Amino acid sequence: MPGYSHILLAVDFSASAEAVAGKALQLSQAFAAKLSLIHVVEFVPVDLSNELVLPQAPEMDQELLQLAEQRLKELATRLGIKECPCTVVQGNTRREILRVAEENGVDLIVLGSHGRQGIQLLLGSTANAVLHGAPCDVLAVRVKD
Amino acid sequence: MPGYSHILLAVDFSASAEAVAGKALQLSQAFAAKLSLIHVVEFVPVDLSNELVLPQAPEMDQELLQLAEQRLKELATRLGIKECPCTVVQGNTRREILRVAEENGVDLIVLGSHGRQGIQLLLGSTANAVLHGAPCDVLAVRVKD
Repeated sequence: MPGYSHILLAVDFSASAEAVAGKALQLSQAFAAKLSLIHVVEFVPVDLSNELVLPQAPEMDQELLQLAEQRLKELATRLGIKECPCTVVQGNTRREILRVAEENGVDLIVLGSHGRQGIQLLLGSTANAVLHGAPCDVLAVRVKD
Repeated sequence: MPGYSHILLAVDFSASAEAVAGKALQLSQAFAAKLSLIHVVEFVPVDLSNELVLPQAPEMDQELLQLAEQRLKELATRLGIKECPCTVVQGNTRREILRVAEENGVDLIVLGSHGRQGIQLLLGSTANAVLHGAPCDVLAVRVKD
């Protein structure tokens, strides 16, 4: 019976990112699976017809991506993950996680799940969104807010 | 770093129940964790003021529960799980899974996730419902419909 061969850890840089990463690492070790990290820098939709909203400078986008890449590598180092493929992409979090998972033959996505209550429950979470339409298994690691 | 010590497998007796159970078994072996099985027989709400709807006979409820218990034990045997605690309860699926998980110190719930599309996506799934308010990690195993 096959276990997991390629685990994709979605990192959100919240206070619990390290705990979630720890779980992904344990699973990758238990199944001798490849572990990849992804962080998605969300687009902020800008209405260019609205003069009150300043579109973000392109160089700021680039800086955000570079900063995220650096933080992702630092996280991997802290966890003792060597030669771990780190992907930083810009776009819609759910869509990018699913795209990267599909393109790389990922069989398990690991991400943090925040305990939403009340109105937040209606707004949904990333874990929830990823669950819909995921091409593979999804492990939602419960984290404390 | 702690792994998992008690895994709760939610069984729905769909065509893919065995594949989902296989994943839960693998995880329990990888982490030397206790494995428990649960199946929830959903209540069908009956409007007693509506003369067109016949309330279900109590003995039928009992038969359903016994049948589910038997099927759950058969599944455990087929998977080679010995002395596996099997719980069959009647009620709301999400609520009962979360209650049993909480009461038994479960740290991982494993259940099947059907690839819902279109209108079904709006209606949500059990995996989705369980994710909300789960006291622990949730592994949604992707199954083909």
